[in-house]
Amino acid sequence: MDCIFCDIISKEADAEIIFENEKFIAFLDINPVNFGHTLVMPKNHFDNFLTIKTEELNDLTKLTQYLAGVVKRAVKADGFNIISNNGVSAGQSVFHFHYHIIPRFENDGHMRHRTVQYKDDEIGKYGDMIRESVQKYKDLLNE
Amino acid sequence: MDCIFCDIISKEADAEIIFENEKFIAFLDINPVNFGHTLVMPKNHFDNFLTIKTEELNDLTKLTQYLAGVVKRAVKADGFNIISNNGVSAGQSVFHFHYHIIPRFENDGHMRHRTVQYKDDEIGKYGDMIRESVQKYKDLLNE
Repeated sequence: MDCIFCDIISKEADAEIIFENEKFIAFLDINPVNFGHTLVMPKNHFDNFLTIKTEELNDLTKLTQYLAGVVKRAVKADGFNIISNNGVSAGQSVFHFHYHIIPRFENDGHMRHRTVQYKDDEIGKYGDMIRESVQKYKDLLNE
Repeated sequence: MDCIFCDIISKEADAEIIFENEKFIAFLDINPVNFGHTLVMPKNHFDNFLTIKTEELNDLTKLTQYLAGVVKRAVKADGFNIISNNGVSAGQSVFHFHYHIIPRFENDGHMRHRTVQYKDDEIGKYGDMIRESVQKYKDLLNE
């Protein structure tokens, strides 16, 4: 399997690593939205947010919470985004699950995006579609 | 405290709720990036990603993983983004912690954003700044 993040984890490829332990690694994105833009991921390979196992998801999210505070302070950011892109359509370019920590500064002009508007009862129809799906898969949550 | 999400949770304000249990609620964003854009949050009020407690963060993230799959299937999306905006500079408009689940479709044209480039050894300097911060706060992780 050809995965640049696995190569970084195995040290076959270089990266500006800012945190590493037995299970997780964090390094700077080489195409940052803002300087200090950090990627955090499990060393085990999971394709995306849907396939990462619960224990690793918990520990990774906690670590990301911690590193978000660290990165924000280090680069004196005003705020930050936590982002996980899943699928090519969503901007995922490396299929090894990772969170982005993107430091943000007032009026940096990034990621303002257009929105669409629900017409008439369209929001209710979408609600119905999703609630039906929730019901269908609710047994997964043991509820 | 004036919080529109707390008002939705207490049913003083309306929303298109797609999931609810004792601790968490999910409803459709009324200003969606794409139809089906969902917000998931704890019923307890935490301002942002840095202040939510570990147990609730774990359960909320697991629920978000589950609902991301549900929403993706329900609206037949090609992919999705998980996003948490923290701070006005990052686009946070309601200061009650929530994840966005944004269904994405091929070539929907959303959220392509410009990047910046590190010059010379600038990436190393940012690495140093952040590693120093990691070291400074590492005792929080008990490592």
